[in-house]
Amino acid sequence: MKYHRIPDETVRRLPVYLRGLLFLSDHKQNISSRNLADFISVNDSQIRKDFSYFGAFGTPGVGYDIRKLIRQIKKMLNLSVSHKAALVGAGNLGSAILAYPGFRMYGFDIAAAFDNDPKKIGREINNVRIEDISSLRTLERRKISLAIIAVPRDAAQQTADALVKAGVKGILNFSPLRITAPKKVKVITIDIAMELARLPYYI
Amino acid sequence: MKYHRIPDETVRRLPVYLRGLLFLSDHKQNISSRNLADFISVNDSQIRKDFSYFGAFGTPGVGYDIRKLIRQIKKMLNLSVSHKAALVGAGNLGSAILAYPGFRMYGFDIAAAFDNDPKKIGREINNVRIEDISSLRTLERRKISLAIIAVPRDAAQQTADALVKAGVKGILNFSPLRITAPKKVKVITIDIAMELARLPYYI
Repeated sequence: MKYHRIPDETVRRLPVYLRGLLFLSDHKQNISSRNLADFISVNDSQIRKDFSYFGAFGTPGVGYDIRKLIRQIKKMLNLSVSHKAALVGAGNLGSAILAYPGFRMYGFDIAAAFDNDPKKIGREINNVRIEDISSLRTLERRKISLAIIAVPRDAAQQTADALVKAGVKGILNFSPLRITAPKKVKVITIDIAMELARLPYYI
Repeated sequence: MKYHRIPDETVRRLPVYLRGLLFLSDHKQNISSRNLADFISVNDSQIRKDFSYFGAFGTPGVGYDIRKLIRQIKKMLNLSVSHKAALVGAGNLGSAILAYPGFRMYGFDIAAAFDNDPKKIGREINNVRIEDISSLRTLERRKISLAIIAVPRDAAQQTADALVKAGVKGILNFSPLRITAPKKVKVITIDIAMELARLPYYI
C-alpha cells in the first residue's frame, strides 16, 4: 500500500466532485467553486481546500477548468486506469449491481461474479457468467483486486476473509455487518439504512 | 421545512457516528473522540467539532457517554420518532431493499411498495404487498413522507415528480440519474459506482 497523504474525508468527497463535474462537462467548460458548491451541496471553502491537495487552483473570474479538474481528480483517485472488480453474491442485490449502468463512467469493469447456489452458477447476468464461489482464488491471476460483497449478513465475514486470501485489496461491503479485514485491505461499507437516516433532518 | 443550522457535511457524518456508536453501545459505556475516530475513520477534531453543534462535550479522562450521544444524535437527526418510507420499484434492487434487515436500527419502517408491473402488483415481499404505482397519491393520507426510488433510470424523474405530488418530503434515489425536485424536497442520491470509486486510491 502506498503512502496516503490526503485525509479520508477528502477521499470521500472527491468522487462526489467527480460525479458532479462529469455531469457538468457535457454543458460547460469552466465553473467557480461557488457554483460547483451549489450543484453538489458541499460548501465552497471546503471544495477549494480539497482541490488544493492536488494543486488545482481556479482562475479569478473564470473558475476551474472542468475537464482538467476531472483529469486531476481521476489521477488523484487512481481512476486514470480502468479497474476490474468481482461481485460476490448474485441474489437480488447482486443482480441489481450487475445490471447497474453507472460503473463505466468511473472506469470500472465488473469482470467476475460468484455465488454458492448451484442454480445460479453458470447463468449469465449482463454478460457476466456466475462462477462457483470456490473459484475466488483465481482473482489474483486475473488481476482483479476490487470486490463487492452482496451476500447475506451471516456469510459476509467469511466472504471477506476469502477475498483477502485471494489477494483483493479493496472491498465494497453491502451487508449491514461490520466486517473486519487486515489493515492493508480497505473496506467501505454501504449501509442503505444509514443513508436514509440523513433524510428526516430535512423534513 | 424548518430552519437548518447544521452544515450538510455534518448531517452527512452524523449517521456515520450514530452507526458506529450503536455498534459500540453493546460493549462499552464511554468512548473518547480519538477512539471513536479510529473506529469510524473520521478524524477526532472533526468529531469534536460536529458534536459541539448539539452541545455534546466529553468528560476529560472518561470521554463521551455513548448512550447519551446516541440519544442526542437521534434527536438532532429527527430520528427519535419512527418514520414510514415507501419504496418505488420492486425489481431486483427494490426486492433487496425490502429484504434489507438494517432499517429498524434507525427507526425506519418500509410501510409501502409500488410497481407498475401487473405481474408484481399484489405479491408480497417481506410482508409488504406491492401496490399499483397509481396508488402513490395515498401516501399523504398514510403519513408516509419518505420514499426510496429503485426504478430503471428512464423512469426515475417521473417517479420523483409523482412522489413530490404525493406530498413526499425526502427521497433516497438509487438511479444513477441526477433527479430534480423542488427545494422543499430533499433528494439524496446513492451512486454505487461512485462509492466504489473511493477504493482504488487505497490499493
